[in-house]
Amino acid sequence: MKKFNTTKVSGTEELLPDTQASFNNLKSKVASAYHSHGYQEIETPSIERTEILLAKAGGETEKQIYKLVKTGDKAIESADQALRFDHTVPLARYIVEHESELYFPLKVSQLGINFRGERAQKGRFREFYQLDIDVIGRGDLPLAYDTDVISTLLDALNSFELDTPILARISNRKILTGVLEYLYLENQATEIMGIIDHADKVTPEQTKVSLEELPLEEPLVKKILKIIDIHGPRSTVIKELGNLDIDNPTFKQGLTELDQVLYWLESLGLKEQIEADLKIVRGLDYYTGTVFEFVLPEYKNLGSIAGGGRYENLTKHFSDQAFPGVGGSIGLTRLFFILNEAKLLPPSTDNLLDYAIIPLSEHEYDEAMNVSTKLRAKDYSTTTIFSDKKLGDRMTYATRVAKNCIVIGPDEVASKTFQAKNFQTGDTAEINIDVISKPEDFWAD
Amino acid sequence: MKKFNTTKVSGTEELLPDTQASFNNLKSKVASAYHSHGYQEIETPSIERTEILLAKAGGETEKQIYKLVKTGDKAIESADQALRFDHTVPLARYIVEHESELYFPLKVSQLGINFRGERAQKGRFREFYQLDIDVIGRGDLPLAYDTDVISTLLDALNSFELDTPILARISNRKILTGVLEYLYLENQATEIMGIIDHADKVTPEQTKVSLEELPLEEPLVKKILKIIDIHGPRSTVIKELGNLDIDNPTFKQGLTELDQVLYWLESLGLKEQIEADLKIVRGLDYYTGTVFEFVLPEYKNLGSIAGGGRYENLTKHFSDQAFPGVGGSIGLTRLFFILNEAKLLPPSTDNLLDYAIIPLSEHEYDEAMNVSTKLRAKDYSTTTIFSDKKLGDRMTYATRVAKNCIVIGPDEVASKTFQAKNFQTGDTAEINIDVISKPEDFWAD
Repeated sequence: MKKFNTTKVSGTEELLPDTQASFNNLKSKVASAYHSHGYQEIETPSIERTEILLAKAGGETEKQIYKLVKTGDKAIESADQALRFDHTVPLARYIVEHESELYFPLKVSQLGINFRGERAQKGRFREFYQLDIDVIGRGDLPLAYDTDVISTLLDALNSFELDTPILARISNRKILTGVLEYLYLENQATEIMGIIDHADKVTPEQTKVSLEELPLEEPLVKKILKIIDIHGPRSTVIKELGNLDIDNPTFKQGLTELDQVLYWLESLGLKEQIEADLKIVRGLDYYTGTVFEFVLPEYKNLGSIAGGGRYENLTKHFSDQAFPGVGGSIGLTRLFFILNEAKLLPPSTDNLLDYAIIPLSEHEYDEAMNVSTKLRAKDYSTTTIFSDKKLGDRMTYATRVAKNCIVIGPDEVASKTFQAKNFQTGDTAEINIDVISKPEDFWAD
Repeated sequence: MKKFNTTKVSGTEELLPDTQASFNNLKSKVASAYHSHGYQEIETPSIERTEILLAKAGGETEKQIYKLVKTGDKAIESADQALRFDHTVPLARYIVEHESELYFPLKVSQLGINFRGERAQKGRFREFYQLDIDVIGRGDLPLAYDTDVISTLLDALNSFELDTPILARISNRKILTGVLEYLYLENQATEIMGIIDHADKVTPEQTKVSLEELPLEEPLVKKILKIIDIHGPRSTVIKELGNLDIDNPTFKQGLTELDQVLYWLESLGLKEQIEADLKIVRGLDYYTGTVFEFVLPEYKNLGSIAGGGRYENLTKHFSDQAFPGVGGSIGLTRLFFILNEAKLLPPSTDNLLDYAIIPLSEHEYDEAMNVSTKLRAKDYSTTTIFSDKKLGDRMTYATRVAKNCIVIGPDEVASKTFQAKNFQTGDTAEINIDVISKPEDFWAD
């Protein structure tokens, strides 16, 4: 009988072993894609000084910061340590702190947990894995790294082998910024960008009304709506934008950059998975050039599954020196949750061990350990089931944890011959424990 | 110029990319050893309800718990969420909560970060990786799992390939408990066990004085000192203990169990790496049978590098049902720190990528991306260095991040022939980007 409420804290996740194995499988696929593209993993502490986190955080984020106190501490206000809410602020601190020991451009990945005291609701998490990559330049950073980040994230997501297409929607913030400059709307830029940023979540009619209510005159509203509706392959989008005849240097630079980034992605063979889309803004502060997000076009309601962009200066709060960067992030805890809900994850037997070894009685324990050790030396994973329960119960357990089993009784100990049973096929085969090398060799007999 | 103090919080760790790669290398070796022995990874949230953590914690631990508050929260006392300080309490909660969905005996690993607000001092960490394995039975759990846990941890530590031996010191708490019962010292058992637990950290003379000061009569002190000095291989230790003629059932059971666990470890071929040692107690609460710790005998001052033991009931605070278990833990953050300080880690080039690709100018960017993609398809890790810096600077960067490099200029683009340079040997070889499969094949030419 339970003596306690043993549920987890709401807004946190905890998985059964098999589901955890699927999650870990995705996590290691991302880590492996990041590594193969040359991103070096770093890990900053979860605990930061509160003033470091507050240097960037504002508004909602600030209220969501978990501060740390211990029994006997005085006021909450004076809590000078807190949990990081993203990887970006700690990365900025790390780079300023270790600048002289790092090589630039620095390509790094961060794969840890972040913490936000959000209001608990379905699909929102208070602690969550965020798998980030960033390229940071000292002074400057070539545009080609924007392509590098996008293609790396796309490789990572493709490695999930989802049974549905993945699309990268890409824009450049300079294009809309230039448009608003050209239309003399700089003063309303923040509000207008906010409405565009939100446009994917509401109807076109609602976006129109929001712009009109700013207020904004109808011809301007029409122009903006027309521009943010532009999306598609490079060939058509760059032409459409060019045809707008907007004589503004920021706009033109954004267009050239977008064209170039898309061109490189195409030459990487990713043409079918990318699209220019002028609705992509990715929040109001921070990003200054390329912006992108990944979606599953067949599951629009799931929203963005990853995203990122180019920023002018990562470390502006901490240093006078400029460290421009480009980065992106896969929020794996949320993504795994929604992929699971939508039944989009391929079935997995990742968690099954290669062999369960079942000694019939304690007399066969050392032989079982011996067989198990020999199998492990050949890179098989094994578990030995020590138990005096009925053989049937032990077999049931074996089918739950392993792909194959070997039962060891007095005869096997005497003859040193072992039968392996494959649970999936039902086949049984005699194995010579000293020579087998791969399951394929074994089951090919 | 720095505008901020950008140092990390004291008591936390943050590594440069190359050192982080060594750390991650050890972490994945442990994870792989745990998996190959049949331990399934689970991950409970970092955040637990405070009452769950307090159900077990007491004394020092309780004071070290980090509680979570947000701006606007009221009193610190009412903080109902906190960070876990070990994996054991969350595991107990997890098992009671999910019992009906789990298979027993449950073999699990937990590889995450724990948090303790310790006083900051060298080699002590406030957030640290603890890599645990546990086997949990429902109702009962065969003794052979004690061997399973010890041999798994030993395999994990051996995989570090340290240039110094590793020794498992093993005892069984029932032996000392039985001795104290036999000597009618049950009432002083806690104090005596505490002194024995501490004996490795002080001189034998100090241990003697501490026992005398309890107070304890000299013949009893002598008896205890004699027993805790017993250590060595199974053959001699079991005989020595038997010769003591202690007629107590707890003692006898402890002796039988220790004999059996050591016998199995010997039959696993681990005889050279194990020793019985009656000084091993592993703290005062919690463990009830087998106890063990791992040390580097050539570096005694480093203390225990891992440890664990058998416990009667994991979930006693949360449930009426008994879940006996046996488990062990490698505190990797501390262990990595001390191995690094003692220069015991083998040199590593783990962090070097296979290839750095250097396009001479922007005209060769797409060819460079193309070459890079082809290498990645063959499972090489690559990075493309986009930069207009001097070639020499880019080469220097390449030597820091990769083992080989390929420079791509107009000639290479035209001829589709590429030269790869191996930084270690200085060799250069022409490679056909479409057919190479492994570095060995390539450099064998």
